[in-house]
Amino acid sequence: MAFAQQLRVPGPTPLPERVVRAASRPMINHRGPEFAALLRDIEEGLRWALRTDNDVLIYPCSGTGGLEAAVVNLLNPGERALFCTMGSFGDRWADIGAAYGADVVRLRVEPGEPIDPEDVERILAENADITTVFVTHNETSTGVTNDIPAIAAVVKARGKLLAVDSVSGAGCLPLDTDGCRIDVLVTGSQKGWMAPPGVAMVAVSAAALARADATTTPRWYLDFVRERKFQEKSQTATTPAVGVLFAMQEGLAMMREEGLEAIWERHARVASMIRAGVDALGLRLLAAEGHRSDTVTAIYNPVDGADTLKELLTDLRTRHGLVLAGGQGDLAGKIFRIGHLGMIDDGDVYSILATLEQGLQETGMRSRVGLAVPAAQSVVRSVQVSGQPAGVS
Amino acid sequence: MAFAQQLRVPGPTPLPERVVRAASRPMINHRGPEFAALLRDIEEGLRWALRTDNDVLIYPCSGTGGLEAAVVNLLNPGERALFCTMGSFGDRWADIGAAYGADVVRLRVEPGEPIDPEDVERILAENADITTVFVTHNETSTGVTNDIPAIAAVVKARGKLLAVDSVSGAGCLPLDTDGCRIDVLVTGSQKGWMAPPGVAMVAVSAAALARADATTTPRWYLDFVRERKFQEKSQTATTPAVGVLFAMQEGLAMMREEGLEAIWERHARVASMIRAGVDALGLRLLAAEGHRSDTVTAIYNPVDGADTLKELLTDLRTRHGLVLAGGQGDLAGKIFRIGHLGMIDDGDVYSILATLEQGLQETGMRSRVGLAVPAAQSVVRSVQVSGQPAGVS
Repeated sequence: MAFAQQLRVPGPTPLPERVVRAASRPMINHRGPEFAALLRDIEEGLRWALRTDNDVLIYPCSGTGGLEAAVVNLLNPGERALFCTMGSFGDRWADIGAAYGADVVRLRVEPGEPIDPEDVERILAENADITTVFVTHNETSTGVTNDIPAIAAVVKARGKLLAVDSVSGAGCLPLDTDGCRIDVLVTGSQKGWMAPPGVAMVAVSAAALARADATTTPRWYLDFVRERKFQEKSQTATTPAVGVLFAMQEGLAMMREEGLEAIWERHARVASMIRAGVDALGLRLLAAEGHRSDTVTAIYNPVDGADTLKELLTDLRTRHGLVLAGGQGDLAGKIFRIGHLGMIDDGDVYSILATLEQGLQETGMRSRVGLAVPAAQSVVRSVQVSGQPAGVS
Repeated sequence: MAFAQQLRVPGPTPLPERVVRAASRPMINHRGPEFAALLRDIEEGLRWALRTDNDVLIYPCSGTGGLEAAVVNLLNPGERALFCTMGSFGDRWADIGAAYGADVVRLRVEPGEPIDPEDVERILAENADITTVFVTHNETSTGVTNDIPAIAAVVKARGKLLAVDSVSGAGCLPLDTDGCRIDVLVTGSQKGWMAPPGVAMVAVSAAALARADATTTPRWYLDFVRERKFQEKSQTATTPAVGVLFAMQEGLAMMREEGLEAIWERHARVASMIRAGVDALGLRLLAAEGHRSDTVTAIYNPVDGADTLKELLTDLRTRHGLVLAGGQGDLAGKIFRIGHLGMIDDGDVYSILATLEQGLQETGMRSRVGLAVPAAQSVVRSVQVSGQPAGVS
């Protein structure tokens, strides 16, 4: 058994010591002045990080609950909506839409591919009755990042509402909620925010709130209008996940100290280092070039057979304490994934890559070592020289 | 400003140091073997504490989310159901039923009164098409505990499904889920379980699962069938609130060390002490005699006027660090509430009562001190002599 674990799945992420200590503060009354100050501070931090002036609703639920909130507040039964899906989480969102009786138009691309804004444009042109577009910013199951500004431009040119799942993107990847005129932006505490899971944050535009006010789809817990009414009084509609919010407050404080663009640059550098190291190991990436995520990297099984991949991941976890994620759904046994978001820096990447390389050697999948770390180091050098990470984009 | 706070609202409750430390453990992969062991341990502990062999579903949401889960899984639109309500949380449950289009029959009693099983019997006799009965075990807003065995006997004699909100009762008050044949039992992490808020636990009978399988009300996040399918593999359908679950595991371990009947006895003793002390202060209880809750005590405003009550609660909080709760809804300004559930013992009660007495004197509502604590001490003596708490039942 390994001495300690290094958790590198795409959420939950490791927590900074400062966050752990903050989350250990004594409980407070969620209807009192201490909570009101906590909530206001978090709301302000999220508006800063999401680049929005919109209300940010705070729900005690997982990211999926946030995705469901978008569906039940924006769509009536029978209403036609476009769901753009690149993998498991996009599919899940479309499934939720269908579960609530929406008339779901599904734009689905092969795993590893991004959504082409021209396809969105074509579907909207062909389906004038589509009222709302749902799209994933960063697909956690495939490690693909969509071009949200380009997609948003197409959606907004036709006056549709736009809902974006940025559960594993926001706070890590460049994102301009108001610049892109995103009506509903969903993210989750356990990703770039460096907090434990249990809270979904949903930024809602005035248009989204107006739509919610008119939507008849049944709901109570996830209703935007009620939640906003409580947050205007600096409370939440139901008992909030106080401990997670303590953690988020401290995570946001750390983010403000670092600066948003510095955070984006760190994630870009770290991801380039991961990709360079993986490439040096002769491994192949699932995501198409130019669309690779800076928060999660999906890598093809180094050899054929799900058993051998399982052997690698078990070896890494049990002998070396490195916890990586397998593939989801149809990708189970075919890929594995490295999460590199939130609390991560260059030193962590060297450790991840060297450990992965060690595991590949131990399981007989690779014979040489000493390749991955120098490749990552060369990315760090390129950043120092040119300001941009070079290598596998 | 007070040196430190003593949080005595009816949830969130103070956390034992052991629980805080457990909740501070490093994050783990929620799809890995460590999480599977955690979930199994929690499920087993909950089955023990709830006296059930049923599946206990674990949702990342507040207690209200658990109440909504009962509605959306048990009721079809237009289906007639009886909601028995004694206050804010019973009303909320009925409101959720109505929001999802159920044909809601509301049995509502005055604040402070319990549900009379004969009224339930009468309504069921008059409405043969009622399929399901929803009832609160312990109404947090009024401090009233229902006689669940008597109500369950009536409901079960007619073969109806029974859903019980025991968010603020389970783990503190005597409860026999299987003995009462409760089909859906909802509770929440931040009450008797000594954990932070963020998780609802829902025990579901085979009949409830069969009903859920046939129910057409739209849902995804709160679906019983999907959640159970994942928990059979020792995972959860969506990302779980890992930190809260760490806390719950330790809270349950402490509960098993103490023993379930000892926990019930402690809550009964502590509540009797609170009531005796409050009575000695010349304050009046909202709840009807014989139905007073052993987890939350609602007390009438000592003098007329909402402002004076606010003054008292602010004095207690800011000068003495004692955080009590006000009234909800129509009871705002008319009552205040003391939470005495989870981590609480005799010493805490002495502190609460003496501080309350001090606040009453400081705000001019009472002139004498030295009355409340001796009254509570006499309860402790009566337990030592007769094994039963004497005094204000």
